[in-house]
Amino acid sequence: MSQTFEFKERDNSAGITEVPGFSAIGISCGIRSKDPTRLDTAIVFSKQPCTAAGTFTTNDVKAAHVRLDSARIAKGGQFHAIVANSGNANAFTGQQGIADAAEMAAILAGLLNVAPESVLMASTGRIGRRLPMDAFKNGLPSGVQKLASTPEAGHLAAQAIMTTDTFAKTATASFTCGGKKIVVSGMAKGAGMIQPNMATMLAFMATNVALKPAELKKFLKASVLESFNHITVDGDESTNDTAILLANGESGVDLKILKSTTENGENCAVTFGKAVDAVCKALASMMVHDGEKITRVVTVEIVGAKTKKAAEKVARAIGNSMLVKSAWFGGDPNWGRIMDAAGYANVGLDDGKLDLFYNDIPVVIKSTPIFENEPKWKAAVGKKEFTVHLDLHMGEAAYTLLANDLTEGYVNFNKGE
Amino acid sequence: MSQTFEFKERDNSAGITEVPGFSAIGISCGIRSKDPTRLDTAIVFSKQPCTAAGTFTTNDVKAAHVRLDSARIAKGGQFHAIVANSGNANAFTGQQGIADAAEMAAILAGLLNVAPESVLMASTGRIGRRLPMDAFKNGLPSGVQKLASTPEAGHLAAQAIMTTDTFAKTATASFTCGGKKIVVSGMAKGAGMIQPNMATMLAFMATNVALKPAELKKFLKASVLESFNHITVDGDESTNDTAILLANGESGVDLKILKSTTENGENCAVTFGKAVDAVCKALASMMVHDGEKITRVVTVEIVGAKTKKAAEKVARAIGNSMLVKSAWFGGDPNWGRIMDAAGYANVGLDDGKLDLFYNDIPVVIKSTPIFENEPKWKAAVGKKEFTVHLDLHMGEAAYTLLANDLTEGYVNFNKGE
Repeated sequence: MSQTFEFKERDNSAGITEVPGFSAIGISCGIRSKDPTRLDTAIVFSKQPCTAAGTFTTNDVKAAHVRLDSARIAKGGQFHAIVANSGNANAFTGQQGIADAAEMAAILAGLLNVAPESVLMASTGRIGRRLPMDAFKNGLPSGVQKLASTPEAGHLAAQAIMTTDTFAKTATASFTCGGKKIVVSGMAKGAGMIQPNMATMLAFMATNVALKPAELKKFLKASVLESFNHITVDGDESTNDTAILLANGESGVDLKILKSTTENGENCAVTFGKAVDAVCKALASMMVHDGEKITRVVTVEIVGAKTKKAAEKVARAIGNSMLVKSAWFGGDPNWGRIMDAAGYANVGLDDGKLDLFYNDIPVVIKSTPIFENEPKWKAAVGKKEFTVHLDLHMGEAAYTLLANDLTEGYVNFNKGE
Repeated sequence: MSQTFEFKERDNSAGITEVPGFSAIGISCGIRSKDPTRLDTAIVFSKQPCTAAGTFTTNDVKAAHVRLDSARIAKGGQFHAIVANSGNANAFTGQQGIADAAEMAAILAGLLNVAPESVLMASTGRIGRRLPMDAFKNGLPSGVQKLASTPEAGHLAAQAIMTTDTFAKTATASFTCGGKKIVVSGMAKGAGMIQPNMATMLAFMATNVALKPAELKKFLKASVLESFNHITVDGDESTNDTAILLANGESGVDLKILKSTTENGENCAVTFGKAVDAVCKALASMMVHDGEKITRVVTVEIVGAKTKKAAEKVARAIGNSMLVKSAWFGGDPNWGRIMDAAGYANVGLDDGKLDLFYNDIPVVIKSTPIFENEPKWKAAVGKKEFTVHLDLHMGEAAYTLLANDLTEGYVNFNKGE
């Protein structure tokens, strides 16, 4: 990819507050603990009204905010703010949960003096417990007072949505279009219960272009499909997956200008699409790298499939196999388990003509193991990051999944009480 | 189930040699190690020719013996013997693997003085390495000399097919039909890479009824669908899954006699079906109880689904979820993860009307958690065995999956080199 935009991530990016016109903050409302240094609530605000696009979990069990946000965004209204808490998922909480999510937004709307429906909300944490509404009533007023457009404020917001994450996830892409600086920036959380489908964990992004909801949705959806929908940690799709992109129009650059302007030999609409892609992909990649107690990140590249869907099935069978992931943890080049998983994806593959590589090292060619490469296999899978490349020789379709290993630490971390 | 047959399992059952006319043995051919006490090859023999039925893995990647056995059984010929080794899967070994499997059977056939095609063969162990043919040439002659119909010989055969299994898996059902004793008995192995689909890990069963191949197949298939296809250890369907039932006709009882005879108020054909069921279910259950480094066995009962297929999807989503299985390991009654997994099975469930029970203790009723039962939830999931019962209230279909927990020990055990 020839990047025609500036890009920065993690500590170098403040996230949402990088976008002109947006302020943010992360505060403690006492939802997770009484410790006031444990941030648990993020606020994002734009005085200028924004259009919004969102993609959400396809899980049959949907968190309250997923139902409410998707309905609000579908109406195509104007938006000013997002309030998001960690420590409680507000999922599987019934009609009470929907009412609580609406009230959470309404409390913030009252403080910001904007319409209640112009505030989106999100929650992440344990499933099945009621949100502590008093915490928001008591905590949000000081949060609104602290809203700022500083890098520090953006970082605090990114920290406040973390659950089992070990670092705040932020990314920013920017470029110039007709003399105006366009910024796409966002923050995200996610480390466990990660196998997004048509959505992601929590990811909040903002930009200063002036796009209609349908236009914005098109860009967001295209990027989500190629980023958050290409990762797995444990194969567990969450009830709360949410990706929201707000556009406040501050730059004055609309779709017509984007399409009719060329910078550095590239159309601005193309550059904008790449910028959204880059932010989504960076945030998605950070989730896999921050997977709970993982030790290795593995890129699973399936090529030569009949359809992209078939390639994805094979990639996910491999990337979610407990046996394959345990072998990755041990640095064991046990390619037989990879072939077994590819086989039970049941895409009708011909086990007589498969090629497998660890990075660029041939492991199996035309289904014949190249045993003389065994020391090189071991060296490759012993690294912190490596690629598993499998050519099915059935067609032209491909799919790449970003996955990681399964460790004793993951099991211990998630065994609960 | 009102058992109208005698039943015994594990140490109380010798397995194959319980069936009149069958002899067996387990020997060391030096496939797994040079240690002669490490049994690695089982032989089963019936002087009287047998009809055979088999079900095999649906994995696209199939072991050599799966291709050869399924072709031989499909021809409907007569069978005299099975030779099965542990320590090498003879899977992903191409045309050479097929030739080796055929030779393995031919060596035994020569020693037994029967036709090469009358011998079935099977392998289990590491994928992708050639079978050591000299080991069979050197080892099988003494095995044939040791063949016996004793309980000890049956046990040695069951031990010889073990890989990561910690105990030999045997089960026997017997009943009387018109004055003749009918026996159905078998042995199996399996502890990891377990999620059979239309088949099982290695299971070899025998009976002394006189059934045609198609008749035998009908009984075997019905039982496999309700036993081996209802279990999971790690969601990894193997390349080698095989269930074979041999019938030597020694009792002289054929389908006509079974159907026209009644004992203890039950038709003998019905009793025979129950006997095959019982042996298959017992062997399948032993695999889950012997799952690699597991600490708990969990029965996942899904009821109130629209279709059995939908109920199975929900059960497998729950029983294969790394997060759910980790919580089971910890004895954590984290029912939110169960609801999350049920939701991403995407059977269109209504998350407003679900009932969940741990054993008979209400956890969630009409999607409302019964928090006052929390101490009882903990007591239930802290046991070595418990049931998760989920009512979807969408229809009448049900599915029960036998599963287990995911432990740090499993990951460590499978991390390889």
